[in-house]
Amino acid sequence: MGEPLRVALLGCGTVGSEVVRLLHSSADDLAARVGAPLELAGIAVRRLGRRRGLPVDDALFTTDAAALVMRRDVDVVVEVIGGIEPARALLLSALRAGRSVVTANKALLAEDGATLHRAASASGVDLYYEASVGGAIPLLRPLRESLAGDHITRVIGIVNGTTNFVLTRMDETGAGFAEALDEATALGYAEADPTADVEGFDAAAKAAILAGLAFHTRVTAADVHREGISEVTSADVAAARSMGCVVKLLAIAERTGTGVGVRVHPAMIPRTHPLGGVREAYNAVFVEGASAGELMFYGPGAGASPTASAVLGDLVAVARNVLSGARGAGESSYAELPCLPMSEVVTRYHISLDVADRAGVLAAVAQAFARRDVSIRTVRQEGHGADASLVVVTHTATDAALQATVEELRELDAVRAVASVMRVEGQP
Amino acid sequence: MGEPLRVALLGCGTVGSEVVRLLHSSADDLAARVGAPLELAGIAVRRLGRRRGLPVDDALFTTDAAALVMRRDVDVVVEVIGGIEPARALLLSALRAGRSVVTANKALLAEDGATLHRAASASGVDLYYEASVGGAIPLLRPLRESLAGDHITRVIGIVNGTTNFVLTRMDETGAGFAEALDEATALGYAEADPTADVEGFDAAAKAAILAGLAFHTRVTAADVHREGISEVTSADVAAARSMGCVVKLLAIAERTGTGVGVRVHPAMIPRTHPLGGVREAYNAVFVEGASAGELMFYGPGAGASPTASAVLGDLVAVARNVLSGARGAGESSYAELPCLPMSEVVTRYHISLDVADRAGVLAAVAQAFARRDVSIRTVRQEGHGADASLVVVTHTATDAALQATVEELRELDAVRAVASVMRVEGQP
Repeated sequence: MGEPLRVALLGCGTVGSEVVRLLHSSADDLAARVGAPLELAGIAVRRLGRRRGLPVDDALFTTDAAALVMRRDVDVVVEVIGGIEPARALLLSALRAGRSVVTANKALLAEDGATLHRAASASGVDLYYEASVGGAIPLLRPLRESLAGDHITRVIGIVNGTTNFVLTRMDETGAGFAEALDEATALGYAEADPTADVEGFDAAAKAAILAGLAFHTRVTAADVHREGISEVTSADVAAARSMGCVVKLLAIAERTGTGVGVRVHPAMIPRTHPLGGVREAYNAVFVEGASAGELMFYGPGAGASPTASAVLGDLVAVARNVLSGARGAGESSYAELPCLPMSEVVTRYHISLDVADRAGVLAAVAQAFARRDVSIRTVRQEGHGADASLVVVTHTATDAALQATVEELRELDAVRAVASVMRVEGQP
Repeated sequence: MGEPLRVALLGCGTVGSEVVRLLHSSADDLAARVGAPLELAGIAVRRLGRRRGLPVDDALFTTDAAALVMRRDVDVVVEVIGGIEPARALLLSALRAGRSVVTANKALLAEDGATLHRAASASGVDLYYEASVGGAIPLLRPLRESLAGDHITRVIGIVNGTTNFVLTRMDETGAGFAEALDEATALGYAEADPTADVEGFDAAAKAAILAGLAFHTRVTAADVHREGISEVTSADVAAARSMGCVVKLLAIAERTGTGVGVRVHPAMIPRTHPLGGVREAYNAVFVEGASAGELMFYGPGAGASPTASAVLGDLVAVARNVLSGARGAGESSYAELPCLPMSEVVTRYHISLDVADRAGVLAAVAQAFARRDVSIRTVRQEGHGADASLVVVTHTATDAALQATVEELRELDAVRAVASVMRVEGQP
């Protein structure tokens, strides 16, 4: 057994505390797997003196994170603070000083991963961040390593547990968005300010990370088209149900002939699709490889224990590399693909229209589609009088053409209201 | 870009041919990901002169595999011959000569992985075998690396596509085993001699590999309790259906207080379990980690393209290591856990009995369970006269106690026949 590897922990909230507990309770196993004991060199916190009930010496706690990451007895820095600053400055110092880094920070990776990767590469050290997407689900290393011999064409993920919980409730109980969100908040699945989850910011950061790894290119959160679920209605969910679908907030990254399209938005997906059965706060990522075929990775997407499990998995890998003088796979961004605007992304729409109950309505509606070269896959007329409606599912077209068609439908005399517009993914 | 990495390919059947095609068609991407071109040094085949239509020089083919693996210009050996010999001798030569090895050979890994790992370790080279279990599904490296910081408690897999196809057909069409197998054969999902698949030998080899990686110990195919699906009847499948379950051939590896239990057998599992929805020839592996929670990995479990994708993923990783002078995670078998006999494994049974239609039958049956301390979870009486039956689902007990109970039931006057006995996994 070698000399202990020394770990600096930045942040000691729920995830950090769980990392500390696991380092203690699994010390022997971790040492056997690494080939040397893992030892905490220090724990940076915002305030000293909070009783945390952790199995470590109080002397390990410090408020000076900047000094901790530069200490000469630190081999690996684990960051679970989150957010852009001070995390970025601390990790850049650590990497430049030759410390390998394990982080769970999706926001930072999605905003400025390139700078961190460059610093890691310049120092010849590791930068691992499995915990940043999908909790404990092994996703990033499979994409970056196991599938490195394949040509990935598409990644579709349910990567936000809060919104999946809300949408599951809306689907299973018929609740509206606000009611389902209240339940999620009461059960601890949604934060007091749920904006980052509900409006898709969290999912967009994860989509950027997944897209970059899948396509060997750089994608930032700003490149991701983002729509949240706050405008999803019970009517949308019911419409999905009536066509054998379920509404999910999907993070989609696609390789096209000319670049990559990365987007987060609610969409209908068939219940028979492997993602259709992912319920509650679970996450799953569906990957299509030219050779591998259709793969899916499923598990709890958040929570202190799963996130800590992913952090420790990275820590074991990084520690082995430190011991052997090796380095894991670094950033692979050779492809340098452009990110397409949403208008050029090809998708399909499900559109519900409240229409006048008279002859010629279908013809007028069909003409609006035809003028934009959007072809209709199915159309269903329902109800009579004031309840008359048309439900249209299109074939694929660019999002710009589909949007323009919807705008035109709003102007038609025969259309009283556009009741619901939602994209459709998978093959219903 | 560095000097080319030289690859010796052993075997050029369907998987080998696909590896050759992908090395050619993805050459630029692979070179960018590795940091150097991958170049075929030679391809060992049984017979020269077959026209294979592959995009390589005929001069690369040789029948002298033993000479090929020892050539000084070979950096990595890829083995897709399968079977124990000559694969073992060839790979041992290669490893001892300092070549890293990528193999898809589940039989060899499950029979004698320890010898191969020792040779790899002694030479400081890599031994990767992602393609041996679950086709292109990234499974082995996630277990051995991503989850290395966690305590895995159980792995349950559907790891054989042929049997899953047969059982899916039996479930969905009501077909009997023979009829469903005929269909699988006609569609190319079953081989002319389906014994290795149908009787669970293939799944047992994979179970041994998964168990070893999950629990950091050595497990061989001989340690795995194995039952196939040839005795699964339409009645079993119907019984499962009536309790909301589906019959699957499961590979189960469990960590117990005293060791590991590894087994392959048909079992009922709830349709709502993530494994319950895995249809046709798909594979999936469900992993329970103390911290990670419940994870699942899903995808096509076989086929030339998925298997070749997994081989190339390993090849990229190994090639990067060769270039950087590093080495991936080697075998981790420090735990040295004993393998429990099936009799000590704790499970649950679903038992259908044809019984006499008279008072006291249930009491007699219940006593048989009680004598072995097996407690009953549910019992259902159905039918009358010659159709009278009892369906019993037990609580957990050792397999020995459950088996003994079934033997005793067979002897009871009140029991005309034990119509169906099947284990139950998951929480129905």
